This record gives sequence, structure tokens and C-alpha cells, in this order.
Amino acid sequence: MIIVLKPEATKKQVTHIVEKIRELGLKPMVSEGVERTIIGVIGPEDILRVQPLEVFPGVEKVMPVLKPYKLVSREFKPQSSVVSIGDVKVGGKKLVMMAGPCSVESLQMLQQTAKAVKQAGAQILRGGAFKPRTSPYSFQGLGEEGLKYLHEAAKSTGLKIITELMDPRDIALFEKYSDIIQIGARNMQNFALLKEAGQSDKPILLKRGLSATISEFLLAAEYILSQGNFNVILCERGIRAFEDQTRFTLDLQAVPVIKKLSHLPVVVDPSHATGQWDLVGPMAKAAIAAGADGLMIEVHPNPEAALSDGPQSLLPEKFVALVKELKKVATAVGRTL
Amino acid sequence: MIIVLKPEATKKQVTHIVEKIRELGLKPMVSEGVERTIIGVIGPEDILRVQPLEVFPGVEKVMPVLKPYKLVSREFKPQSSVVSIGDVKVGGKKLVMMAGPCSVESLQMLQQTAKAVKQAGAQILRGGAFKPRTSPYSFQGLGEEGLKYLHEAAKSTGLKIITELMDPRDIALFEKYSDIIQIGARNMQNFALLKEAGQSDKPILLKRGLSATISEFLLAAEYILSQGNFNVILCERGIRAFEDQTRFTLDLQAVPVIKKLSHLPVVVDPSHATGQWDLVGPMAKAAIAAGADGLMIEVHPNPEAALSDGPQSLLPEKFVALVKELKKVATAVGRTL
Amino acid sequence: MIIVLKPEATKKQVTHIVEKIRELGLKPMVSEGVERTIIGVIGPEDILRVQPLEVFPGVEKVMPVLKPYKLVSREFKPQSSVVSIGDVKVGGKKLVMMAGPCSVESLQMLQQTAKAVKQAGAQILRGGAFKPRTSPYSFQGLGEEGLKYLHEAAKSTGLKIITELMDPRDIALFEKYSDIIQIGARNMQNFALLKEAGQSDKPILLKRGLSATISEFLLAAEYILSQGNFNVILCERGIRAFEDQTRFTLDLQAVPVIKKLSHLPVVVDPSHATGQWDLVGPMAKAAIAAGADGLMIEVHPNPEAALSDGPQSLLPEKFVALVKELKKVATAVGRTL
Amino acid sequence: MIIVLKPEATKKQVTHIVEKIRELGLKPMVSEGVERTIIGVIGPEDILRVQPLEVFPGVEKVMPVLKPYKLVSREFKPQSSVVSIGDVKVGGKKLVMMAGPCSVESLQMLQQTAKAVKQAGAQILRGGAFKPRTSPYSFQGLGEEGLKYLHEAAKSTGLKIITELMDPRDIALFEKYSDIIQIGARNMQNFALLKEAGQSDKPILLKRGLSATISEFLLAAEYILSQGNFNVILCERGIRAFEDQTRFTLDLQAVPVIKKLSHLPVVVDPSHATGQWDLVGPMAKAAIAAGADGLMIEVHPNPEAALSDGPQSLLPEKFVALVKELKKVATAVGRTL
Repeated sequence: MIIVLKPEATKKQVTHIVEKIRELGLKPMVSEGVERTIIGVIGPEDILRVQPLEVFPGVEKVMPVLKPYKLVSREFKPQSSVVSIGDVKVGGKKLVMMAGPCSVESLQMLQQTAKAVKQAGAQILRGGAFKPRTSPYSFQGLGEEGLKYLHEAAKSTGLKIITELMDPRDIALFEKYSDIIQIGARNMQNFALLKEAGQSDKPILLKRGLSATISEFLLAAEYILSQGNFNVILCERGIRAFEDQTRFTLDLQAVPVIKKLSHLPVVVDPSHATGQWDLVGPMAKAAIAAGADGLMIEVHPNPEAALSDGPQSLLPEKFVALVKELKKVATAVGRTL
Repeated sequence: MIIVLKPEATKKQVTHIVEKIRELGLKPMVSEGVERTIIGVIGPEDILRVQPLEVFPGVEKVMPVLKPYKLVSREFKPQSSVVSIGDVKVGGKKLVMMAGPCSVESLQMLQQTAKAVKQAGAQILRGGAFKPRTSPYSFQGLGEEGLKYLHEAAKSTGLKIITELMDPRDIALFEKYSDIIQIGARNMQNFALLKEAGQSDKPILLKRGLSATISEFLLAAEYILSQGNFNVILCERGIRAFEDQTRFTLDLQAVPVIKKLSHLPVVVDPSHATGQWDLVGPMAKAAIAAGADGLMIEVHPNPEAALSDGPQSLLPEKFVALVKELKKVATAVGRTL
Repeated sequence: MIIVLKPEATKKQVTHIVEKIRELGLKPMVSEGVERTIIGVIGPEDILRVQPLEVFPGVEKVMPVLKPYKLVSREFKPQSSVVSIGDVKVGGKKLVMMAGPCSVESLQMLQQTAKAVKQAGAQILRGGAFKPRTSPYSFQGLGEEGLKYLHEAAKSTGLKIITELMDPRDIALFEKYSDIIQIGARNMQNFALLKEAGQSDKPILLKRGLSATISEFLLAAEYILSQGNFNVILCERGIRAFEDQTRFTLDLQAVPVIKKLSHLPVVVDPSHATGQWDLVGPMAKAAIAAGADGLMIEVHPNPEAALSDGPQSLLPEKFVALVKELKKVATAVGRTL
Repeated sequence: MIIVLKPEATKKQVTHIVEKIRELGLKPMVSEGVERTIIGVIGPEDILRVQPLEVFPGVEKVMPVLKPYKLVSREFKPQSSVVSIGDVKVGGKKLVMMAGPCSVESLQMLQQTAKAVKQAGAQILRGGAFKPRTSPYSFQGLGEEGLKYLHEAAKSTGLKIITELMDPRDIALFEKYSDIIQIGARNMQNFALLKEAGQSDKPILLKRGLSATISEFLLAAEYILSQGNFNVILCERGIRAFEDQTRFTLDLQAVPVIKKLSHLPVVVDPSHATGQWDLVGPMAKAAIAAGADGLMIEVHPNPEAALSDGPQSLLPEKFVALVKELKKVATAVGRTL
């Protein structure tokens, strides 16, 4: 931690801060420059981070030196983590493909989609049973019924299931029916939910919040790991910026940046980011080229009749064609799909 | 709803869309322009809003004409709403002042702060018992103990209490100890929580999400009203933009914009927006001048020792001085404080 | 300057950096912490700022301690600057009011507007002769003819003139006809223009760029001051964020932040920020309450026929009424209008 | 153009608007819905776009139907444009590689870099002679001397030259020494410069502004085409968002979006976007996978000594290795490099 003092800071103010630092069991190092005095603090930064040093008289700014997260960091664990869901691995050389409809609408359409995405090479079936919708008047999902359909579709195809948890009271249901529990972008800082997920033994896929910095994203994951659950997959799904031609702005730089900072696997959801099915292909390829460990893509047998996110869903035949192209890009960057 | 077709859209595609619109019981109006065909749809827009028209062949874009929210809109209720918490009114000529520490840290410091803000003219005591913290290693609040302290401080001063609910499982506790239930920015689209709040008979203060558009903010409030609870106060508390000199960017334009679109009262929280105590005063004045119905301000008797948000907290004596200045601005814009 | 090394940095890398710092005539101070080594550098930071220290082997990040601007800073000049345009002062107790049409459209309409805003109490007439328009097909301004009309209107009313310079080749024309030269938001980092403005003896009003941080804004002003022209007025006019109900997002926090960092006067343009005439009033009041030194407001005698920015222009009678209300807010915060 | 009226709009107001539309030679179509009246306007939208219809009494909002640009649009020219710089083509199956130092620092280092990037397969040498720098105290470039060095390096290697023009008064110099004239992000809406570029017969590379929407970016290009110069290459180089781990946020969605909307070629600059050399590789691959027509990459023989942008420059040997990997990605998406 570096404490920069104001040019007009007095000796007395410096002494007050130095004493405070010593009281906390840390070692202050005072450098008197020509223009201002700086105090470096040696010792565990955590102790100081929770102190409101900015309000001490004479302080201009406080600059943390270390990162605020631990368990998720590559410094804590240098080798990349691989999250296993049965025989499906996320984070290894082989990329993971999660595909399926935005919402579970009926057992029949789900079975049809599951078969199609399985054939195209997907390992994990996505689908929402409880839906976070911006408007209270939009379709809110089938609830527990939807979870059962997912379970059914998984059994008959051998796919694993990922579906979104919105309410900490539903965790037992999700542990029963789901293979991976998804925490959505709008709940990335729903700390009650994060703590519940941290106590589960299911793998968690955590989506980046719409306006979360990468540091906040990693701290949200840290909530889960700090409760004991290390099986966390991160997902970039578009951030909110000013561009209005697309639903969100896909921040693919987040992929290599997170890979540098953290050992956790990272997947990308180009469907929600773009909001338009014909942009999903280019961005899916770009995500793999940027180093993502997998993709989550919306596929619907009849987008015209979808109860949510029709415009961004691929037809099964388009998805099949896309997977073929993605395999080539995966090979080009030394991965398999 | 206006459906704009691509220049190359065929007669057959137009017919397909027109039939779909008629099937839904709506009336299509086709205008063939020189450059492209446009279909206007007459009838309740809600029916169409949930249809993924963008995926119909030949469609270039779909432009909704009406607003997606109803109960919160000024069209639904032209007169401004006044939310009553006992004898305290939010939304009338008299502005409301909510003040207190970021977190409840001890009964003693809370009582001290409560007395000070009461004397300065505040009607409502704020303070967090359950705290949404970016890092799992930061102080998470005193929990139920904190709620009891708030209740105690309220009894002894006659102030009303506002405190943040984070977990739908805690609602009964909050109904017991609190006068206004706050839903924080990070939970603005926690729909499980919104629905719970909608079924409560306590007034709700809903903070704007960090990257929520005003339209999404009003739709989040619509969740609460649509469950039957019309006692909702909106709170602008800063959005996420690119500026790094302040914690967030206070969007004061939101105040007059929301006043045009909605009948709900709007208050402003300059403490969280700025993150710096010496910016709180100017922005509090600006908020009143822009037409806010009240303010929420962090006050702490010893910011140097605060367990959260020390840098943005005012000392009680600074708060007293600020309230005097705010009264002048209130008078200048025809309000009282 | 603080240089934070990677945990795995070697002794040799530390020595390499220390030698480089000494070569530059600066004094390195090495602190070896438990988790990593940090090197503080004592001496003028400017020398180091232009060195790409981030690329030195072993460096994790470089944190500047001092501000990158000098002449515009309050540390360089603690007293607030007052810019004089004849007998009109910007930056003193009395607020300045600049008003007029977006574009100069004809001599007659300009004279009519000039008279109206003069009567309402404005001291400076705004109006564009050369217009920065997003589309090449929009009205581009009357050019030199427009400058002459402005000069004419100034003579007959006693108002001062402010108008926007877009091309460094036009500076002589502007020095002849204008009292204040405006540099628009889109040209805030047009360095050729800034240098030309810095060599002029006319006062300059510099608008903040749509996505400029406050630090970049002050550095743009520094370009002008560093060429010798200290008569600079800063103008906040809305930044680009994600909200789509308004044209831009007015960042009023910028007013007190700039007042802390710089001695230069700051005015606010609520017309361009909001893009809607009925939001201009609330935001003009808020700007004064936040501590702005003046306002720039669009007024047009017939917004329905305006060649640019009609929707955000006030009718003269609305402007007269607004100025009356603004006077009250000015008084409430200890200023006059 | 669709004009949506307020619910309370009167017959008289509707008639007033209808008359105005007819006066302009256009055809109004009035639809009276249950909730509000809508007026569609048939005929060239350009005529109406410049009318401030929002200010007409009774109007709630105005929604343009057509795009505001013409010559740059794919509707105007369905086939993709190929810009030729001698025998180098931008926009065809073969990708273009532009590489070189941020600034021209000396003839020797330029020759050295030119040789290295030529060998690695680059066709175009980048390098700044006039530099747009945020601070007036940063290196401003060698000026005309730098242009001569570029010319020299081009002659001896057979590379083409691209370099940035900042001042319209320098256009003749650039036409003499340069093969492609670059207009930088900070000058994207410097309309004086755009018009000058439009009258040149040199190809123009136009970089997207830091906060420019894609629509504004295309309108800036439209300025150049509308003056007669159709040889325009667009360049995505990162936008300003809230993330602070990278210099800017690379918006790769812009690539397929622009490809849909415009016939102009699009290249990507991952060096400026990321600001960190070790992120350049992943983002360069992602750009090709997303469909970019080429790349612009900073290469410097000694980043530790670079006078600008050292941290984001690749060493020549790293660049050679990267190009090999990029060739594989290019092949995977059906292109060559």
C-alpha cells in the first residue's frame, strides 16, 4: 500500500499516520520527495485495505499495490484449473461446447434441440427454467417443471445440464436436477446467492456482470471459492457500453486478461452479447482465437416461436455448420473441439 | 410497433408477417415506400413485444412505439405519488433527508449518529446491517444484531429506519425491524428479491443499478408494483462510466427524466456516487436543484475508524452545516427541508 | 513514481531498473516486501513518465504519483483564475450567462435572439458560424458570413461573442470577429487547433470531449496554457454513457472535481447534454448549485424552424423565465447572476 | 420517418404536422391507434431528418427508419470494396498486415524495423511523424523529417507507408511522402480534416473515435466519400468503456456489424486497444477470426527505449512468431496472409 500525502501535509499528520500503521502491526517507510511525502507500507496489505486511510488528515490518495483477490489468482495457483463435470472437462486442451435454447419451453422442443446439439458435438445442454427477465410481463420460465425436462433430456442424450439459479431458496432443487449451476450476469453481485453457491458441491458457471470490471468479476468468484467450492467457470457475455447496434459489447480482451490473472477456466457467450444470430458465428470464432476454453450458444429449432431471445438463436442446422468452422479455428490455435 | 423490412424483402415474406400479426388479433398497416416497406401494427403492443419478430425472414428491425412499463408510468397515474412512512412523506413539497452511517458498527456509535442527524433535521436513519461488499474479506455487517440496534436507535430518537435487504429469506426480519426496505444497486435486477418486496406492505426504496438504463430501472420498479406494492421510492446513486476521479458518475439528468416518465418519488444518494466526502455537499445541492424529492447521505462520527465507506462519510458537524445550506437551495426551487 | 515488481522478479532485473533510474539522474528507493519488491523513485516524475518502464523485465505495473499537468493545476496557482472578456468576468462571484442559437441562420433571427437574451441578462452571445455536424448532409453553417452577423449583433447589443473554431486555418478570421474562441467537444484533442489557440490572445472556451476523463480534459487545456494563453474557460457539456433517454450524460461531479484540481473557471452547457429543452431548466439549476461559474444555453426564437438543435433550444420567453429562477439558486449558493 | 404523438395530442396538432410534411413534398400516413396516433412519412427521409420535428407541439418522439449514411452503405454498393495501394489490396481474400513503430524516432531504427516487418510478411510500414499525444510534454514526433525517413525506408524495402495526418495544412506534405493517410481516433470528427482527406487522391485509413458509435463512424467516412474519395479503410482500435485493466476495450463485434452495413474494408489495431504487448497476439487472432481484412500492429526493435507506446510494442522476433500463428487462423477462416 502506498500513501501519497498532500503537498501541504504537516509533520504532525505524517506522524499520526505512521503511528496508525505501526498500531496495525505493519512497517511504514517514509520517503520525503521534493514535491511531496510518500509512505510505503510493508506487511500484509489486507489489514490496511479495510482502513479508510483516505480520510486521514493530509492524505491525498491511497494506492493499493497488491490484488484484492487471492484464491482465484494465478499467484495462488499457477497451473490452470480444469473443472470436471463427470467426464466433461472445462479448461483443458479440448474446448467445451454448451448449447441449447434460452428458455425451456416444452419437453418436446427441448428433446429435439438436445438431440441436435448432441449430434453437432455439444457436451452440455443449456436452458433456463427460471428466467431473469427485464420486464415482469415477459415469460418467467417453467420453474421446477423446466428443471425436470432438462433432467429428462440429459438422461436420454447423455448431455450434461447447465441452468440458471436465481433464488438461494431453490438451491436444493438445482442440486437435484442440474450438473452445473449458472449464476447470471444480473446476479453476479447477489452475495446471498454467491455464498450459497460456494457451499454447494456442484460446479458453478459465473457470468460477468454487465458493468463489472474484471477485478470485481474475480472478487465475485472469490466469494464462491472462499466458501470452499473451487469448481468455478467464468463466462464473458458482453458488457454495457454505448454502442446501440448490438445488445451488449463483447469484451474479448477479458479472455487473455483473466487467463493472466486467474487459474479459472473462461468461456464466452456470443449469443447474449450480440443479440443477433448472424453475429454469433464471427464472435464465436473470435472467442476461440482469443483463447477461450469453450462457448455457450443459443440454439432453437424454431426461433420465430421462441418465448425468449429468438433473434439471437441459431437454427440447429446453422449450429451444425458453425461447429464445423469452429473446429478449424480451434485447430489453428492448438485446441480441439 | 413498427416493423421495417429489408429493401430486398419479398411479397411472400410481407404476407407471412401480416398473417402472423392477424393471428395475434392485431391489425397490420402496410406502407410501401420507395426504398422499403414498413408495417405498422395497431392494437396492444404487449402482445407483440414478446414475439421475436426480428427473426422473421425479410425483417430488418422492429421499433416499439409504446413504453414497456405501465403501473410506474405517469400515463397510468398522472399525479405524483407521495409515499408515507408514518408521518414522514416522500414526494411532497417537503424534501426528505435520510442520513446515517454506511454500516451499523455498534449500538453506541449508532445512537450517537442518530441523535446528531435527528438534530440536524433528518427524518430517516440509514444504516446497513447486512452489507453487499465487493470483496468477501470486507466487513459483512452485524446481521440481525444490527437490525435490533437500528430499531433501538429509532425508538429513542423518533427517526424512521431504512436498511438494505439482500436475501429474500430475511424479509420477515426486515418487516419486523425496519420502516423502509432498501434494495441496493447490485440487486436491482435480483428478481426473486423484487417479487418478495412487491408482496411486502413496507415501503421500498429501490436503487438504480450501476449500468441500468432509466427504462430498465422503471421496469425493475414495475416488478414491485405489479405484485401489489405501490409504495416505491426510486434512488439515483451514480452509474458506471469511464471517469476514474470519482467512485461513480452521478446521473442527475435521471431526476427530471424520471419525473417526466413516472409518478414515483426520486431521491439521490451523493455519498455513494462521489465516494468522497468533500464532493457530497455540491452534489447534494445540485440534486435538490434538479428536482429530487430527498437525499440519502452518509454521516459517521469518526470516519477514520469506519468499517466501510469512511472516505465518503461526513462528520456530524459537517452534516449540520450542509443541511443549513441545503435549506437555502430547497427554498430557491420552491421546496422545504 | 512507484514501480511494482512481479513476485518472480530476479535480483538482476531489480539491478537493471535501479541502474536505469540512476542514469536518468533520479534516486531509486527499493523496498523488499514479503510478497514483492517495490521501487520508489524520488525526483521530477516528468523524466520518468516518458520512459516505458512497463516493458522492463520483471515489472508488473507502474503507478504515477503526481498529476501529469502543471500550469492548469491548483498546486501551480492556488487562487481561482478569473478570465476577463472586456468588462465581463468569468470565474468571480458573478456567474456568466452565454446564450443564443445553435447556428447563426440569418442576421435577422440573430439580432432578434441577441436582443432577447441581452434583456434576460445574458452577457455573451453564442452562435455557430462553422458547424461540426455528425452528417455531411446536415447544415454546415454560414461560414464567414455568420461571423460577420455575430459581430453585427454584438455591436448593436453590447454583448460579447463566443463562436466555435474548427479549422486552424481560420484563426485570423475568428480573432477579427469573435471575443471568445470556442473549441468544441469533438476537437478537444485536435492538437493542431489547441496549439493555435494557445498562441492566440483571445480567451478560449474548451469543451470536454465526449469520452474524455477529467485528467485528459485538463491536459488538453494544458496544451493551450503551455503555449502562453492562460485565458481558458472549461466547459462540461455531457459525456457519452449508456443512457439513451438523453443525448448525453451531464457529469456535474466534474464541476467540484475540476475546482479541486484546477484554478480555471468551469461553465456548463445543459442544452447539448440533455438534448431536450424541458430538461435544460433543471440541469441549469443543478449546475449552478454544483458550483459552476456560468452557463451556456441555446435559445432560438422559432425552434420549429431551427436548422440545428431545435429540440434542445428554449424560446426567448422561456429563457427569460428560467433566468429568474436561476437567480434564486445563485443567491442560495452565494453567487449572483 | 415515424412520428409518435403524445397520448394527449390534439387534432389541431396532428393537422399542423401533416401540413408541414406536405409542404416539404412528402406524404404523411396517419394511423390512429387506441393509445396514440402515429404518423408515417413516405418519401426521401433526408428532407425530414434535418427538420426538428421533436419540437412540434404534440410530438413525443421521432424515429428515423432509414440509415443516415448513403455512399458508405452496402445498400448503395452491395459488393465489398477493395482499396488498392499499388499492388497491395485491402479488402480481398488476402489479409493486409501493417506494422512498424508507434513513432518514427530515427532513420536507423526505422530501417531496422522496416526490414524486420517486411521479412515477417508485412506489406505496409506504419510510423508516426506527427504524434497526437495526450500531454503537451510528451514527444510530439519528428515532423517532416519523420516523413522523409518513412519515404526512405519504403524505398529501400518496397513497403508502402501509412502515417497520421493531424493538421489540414500538412496535406500536401503527406501526399508527397505517404501511400495511405491515416486519420486518428481523436480526429475522427475533425471535419476540416475529413473534408481535406475527401479531396485527396490518396487512400485514407480512418480510425474509429474512442466513443463513436458505429453509425457515427460510418458518417465520418461518409464525409470523405461525399467529397469524392472512395478509397477508405476503416479501423477499429478500441473504444472507451469502464474496464481499467486494458488501455481501451476492443469492440470486435464492430467488424461483422460494419461488414453488414458497409462495403468498406475494416482492419483492426490490437496494439492501441490493449496497450500491452502480451495481449496483442490473442486479440490479433481474434480480429482475423471475426472477419477483419487486416491488422495494424506496433513493432519496435527496443521497446525499453521507445519514445512512445513502448509497453504495447512487439519485438521483431515476437512479431515474426505471431505472423506464423496468424497465418493458421487466416487459413481456418478461408483467408490468406
